Amino acid sequence: MTSWITNAWYVAAWDSEVDRQPLARTICGVPVALYRKLDRTVVALRDACPHRLLPLSMGIKEGDSVRCRYHGLKLSAQGIAEEMPLKADAPNAGLCVETFTTAERHRFVWIWVGDKALADPALIPDLWPCSAPGWTFDGGYYPIGCDYRLVIDNLMDLTHETYVHAGSIGQPELMEAPIQTSVEGDTVYVKRWMPGIEAPPFWRDALKRDGPVDRWQVCQFVAPAAVIIDVGVSPVEAGDTLDSHDHGVRGFVIDFMTPRTETSTHYFWGMARNFDIDDLGFTVRFKAQQARVFAQDVEVLEAQQKSIDANPDLRLAAFNIDQGGVRTRQLIARKIGASAR
Amino acid sequence: MTSWITNAWYVAAWDSEVDRQPLARTICGVPVALYRKLDRTVVALRDACPHRLLPLSMGIKEGDSVRCRYHGLKLSAQGIAEEMPLKADAPNAGLCVETFTTAERHRFVWIWVGDKALADPALIPDLWPCSAPGWTFDGGYYPIGCDYRLVIDNLMDLTHETYVHAGSIGQPELMEAPIQTSVEGDTVYVKRWMPGIEAPPFWRDALKRDGPVDRWQVCQFVAPAAVIIDVGVSPVEAGDTLDSHDHGVRGFVIDFMTPRTETSTHYFWGMARNFDIDDLGFTVRFKAQQARVFAQDVEVLEAQQKSIDANPDLRLAAFNIDQGGVRTRQLIARKIGASAR
Amino acid sequence: MTSWITNAWYVAAWDSEVDRQPLARTICGVPVALYRKLDRTVVALRDACPHRLLPLSMGIKEGDSVRCRYHGLKLSAQGIAEEMPLKADAPNAGLCVETFTTAERHRFVWIWVGDKALADPALIPDLWPCSAPGWTFDGGYYPIGCDYRLVIDNLMDLTHETYVHAGSIGQPELMEAPIQTSVEGDTVYVKRWMPGIEAPPFWRDALKRDGPVDRWQVCQFVAPAAVIIDVGVSPVEAGDTLDSHDHGVRGFVIDFMTPRTETSTHYFWGMARNFDIDDLGFTVRFKAQQARVFAQDVEVLEAQQKSIDANPDLRLAAFNIDQGGVRTRQLIARKIGASAR
Repeated sequence: MTSWITNAWYVAAWDSEVDRQPLARTICGVPVALYRKLDRTVVALRDACPHRLLPLSMGIKEGDSVRCRYHGLKLSAQGIAEEMPLKADAPNAGLCVETFTTAERHRFVWIWVGDKALADPALIPDLWPCSAPGWTFDGGYYPIGCDYRLVIDNLMDLTHETYVHAGSIGQPELMEAPIQTSVEGDTVYVKRWMPGIEAPPFWRDALKRDGPVDRWQVCQFVAPAAVIIDVGVSPVEAGDTLDSHDHGVRGFVIDFMTPRTETSTHYFWGMARNFDIDDLGFTVRFKAQQARVFAQDVEVLEAQQKSIDANPDLRLAAFNIDQGGVRTRQLIARKIGASAR
Repeated sequence: MTSWITNAWYVAAWDSEVDRQPLARTICGVPVALYRKLDRTVVALRDACPHRLLPLSMGIKEGDSVRCRYHGLKLSAQGIAEEMPLKADAPNAGLCVETFTTAERHRFVWIWVGDKALADPALIPDLWPCSAPGWTFDGGYYPIGCDYRLVIDNLMDLTHETYVHAGSIGQPELMEAPIQTSVEGDTVYVKRWMPGIEAPPFWRDALKRDGPVDRWQVCQFVAPAAVIIDVGVSPVEAGDTLDSHDHGVRGFVIDFMTPRTETSTHYFWGMARNFDIDDLGFTVRFKAQQARVFAQDVEVLEAQQKSIDANPDLRLAAFNIDQGGVRTRQLIARKIGASAR
Repeated sequence: MTSWITNAWYVAAWDSEVDRQPLARTICGVPVALYRKLDRTVVALRDACPHRLLPLSMGIKEGDSVRCRYHGLKLSAQGIAEEMPLKADAPNAGLCVETFTTAERHRFVWIWVGDKALADPALIPDLWPCSAPGWTFDGGYYPIGCDYRLVIDNLMDLTHETYVHAGSIGQPELMEAPIQTSVEGDTVYVKRWMPGIEAPPFWRDALKRDGPVDRWQVCQFVAPAAVIIDVGVSPVEAGDTLDSHDHGVRGFVIDFMTPRTETSTHYFWGMARNFDIDDLGFTVRFKAQQARVFAQDVEVLEAQQKSIDANPDLRLAAFNIDQGGVRTRQLIARKIGASAR
């Protein structure tokens, strides 16, 4: 039994990471080679030649096929042997490498490593701000040495910003604002509304004016492993509310935590925003700044994983602020159990 | 069953190593955070926040309390929660982190990680030369990748000086002098008297004269993990004996081997001496020289541990020279068994 | 049950690697110290002092004996204790370290780590070109992080040259030439005859002329772990055949794969040749070139081992080209089983 939902779409890579040459990436414990065909659609093969298991990601691309760099077995994009090491040998019809269903949406390459018959593209989490008109979206990829659920816990409770990110996005009001946690179907919400506060530096710059603002953080977990955080501020006089807040500057932080192994995670982070959307310089500066913020999270998350391993007699506790993470873990466990039945 | 005595005082650190900011150190398999209160007494907490297990050694000191750097849970020096991440939440009275009893004596910070009810300061090994008038004491801390008992074996038989430390403190007479091994209560003695020899360079310099000397080495194991070695030389004409030898230069090498894990050790080494006690330059030079000697021991001890692991079919043998180590291991095993009953 | 034949001769080292100071090398899972006596014969001792298990390879040579560098136990070349740490103690007659039978032949030091009573030098594989008049032989030692059988597979099917060694010794004709696989006793043959082709650069240079050649590759596995490859070209007009081909330039690639552990191998590679045998410059250049070729194999072999470990649900497949490797693995398994009965 794994700690993740098997029959689900996971982000395998950013669209920009996958090209004609294969990319090696282990997804939910499965080594995968990802590459684009000439028509740019993405192929995902088990990253082991069916002959002697050399990673196909070390192979040679020939058109849409890949030839193993050890003995030259050539496999089509459908995973079927096209040419044997000895050209005189006819390929056995059943000789093939496992393939995985992929999709490309919202700037991500998605993969389904579970039961292929269930891989319905309609089940891909709806990350609409990543690809909607009037919005711009970019971000980065970060490998982390911890259980993917620790990253989700981190994101479903943003009080950690006060201590982990003191000096950047943290502010004491985050600790003081009440939070509302709720579960709706396969989604967990943690909402926080901070009315009439002073905007922290990042948001004041985005709003391009001083003065009291309403600030919101709406964290939304979407199975199997996405956390979407609706963030922003609007001037108090605009009268925005937790349910409707489009009069200021708004962003969606998009986080996807793809399990690599039980104790390592591919973290895909990005931000979609509806302000300064043509300012590529802003995007680049913000990504660089976020990389620094993120290094603080990595330090904490990897230390937490090591401490969990070093204190096997201790258990994680759950306080009020952890309700988002707790409900999320319950939801994940329920879906793992349901798919196991 | 561990290889060490659980209900006992172990050296956690030199007095100089523990300050206001927490120090992380694993003692007998238990991660511990050590820090000083404003009154300079030493606090030892399990190095894992009771909330999400981030090491408290990464935390922020606030007065005598420590605040976790992840979500801000604040814990008192008594290990009790004083403030929750959300300040509006009242701390649960039972929310606390494990604390350990500590004591400071003989320039060491001592810790008791076993049954707290048994932690009697009177049981701290008597290392009197470390804190007696007329003596000066200093030394260093060395982590070693081996079972703590291999270090004890090393110290309870100093014939190894001939080969491991050829050129510094070793001399052939060490191999030739008969040894007397005895057990008195929780103490094991290995005594060696070398009458009328030429002093090796270190001791000749300490004595500040040439001529034949009597040299002694009295190794004393004190449970749970100390080895005190009474060493020195006195001029032959002074008529010193194995039982009474205060007419020359005398030192006590103080060694404490605190188990970190089954195959790693915190080695605290120091030397108390009754000569040149105000010569700080001598102390500094001697520590630097000893660090070089000690690097020779580390090389041997870590190679020995690796060889033990690589030759699982072989057992350590015991010769006459090993009686000190053998008796010490028997004493340790007896005390482990007694405390298990 | 190991993956290798226990009662057999393995190459422990090149003759040039073993000298008066002990060399540490783990052979078939057993740590061994190898050194030469004054008469230059080779001693092999278990690399652990029977006293406290310090590796004897760290010891001090005294004549043909070795003295442990920890407490000074002195052991003869026959592995018998000659002097105790305390010289006054008489060595116990039974105090000894395990010794292994060695032999020196064909420029290699051979070792038998199995049942000593069976160690018949007549069983040493006949690598005659390594020490025959009219031939010269040299090579190198390469540690590889993989199962020794993966290296054998690699060598028993040279179609991999086309892809792994494209640009050096590979040529497409290798893929097209039919192979003949046969088993004769404890030997497996894979033979390939390429008539009337253009010689690849290496062989054209060796032959010192242009024009069509016949090329051959005759791979021969000899238990427990040698692969001898008869290679070369001769002018077409000489009329050479697969069974008789001495009219051109000829070499024997000598490969010996000694298991270190189940997933690491000592690879001894060399080439014996009957051309330009006095041209030491050629030998040196060829060894340097071969080291580059070999780095390509190491990359592939270690990636293959990692992929085998990362894909535990997958098995190695066997195609026609793999018949040599398949038969070799069957032969090894049969001999392991026979010796287990």
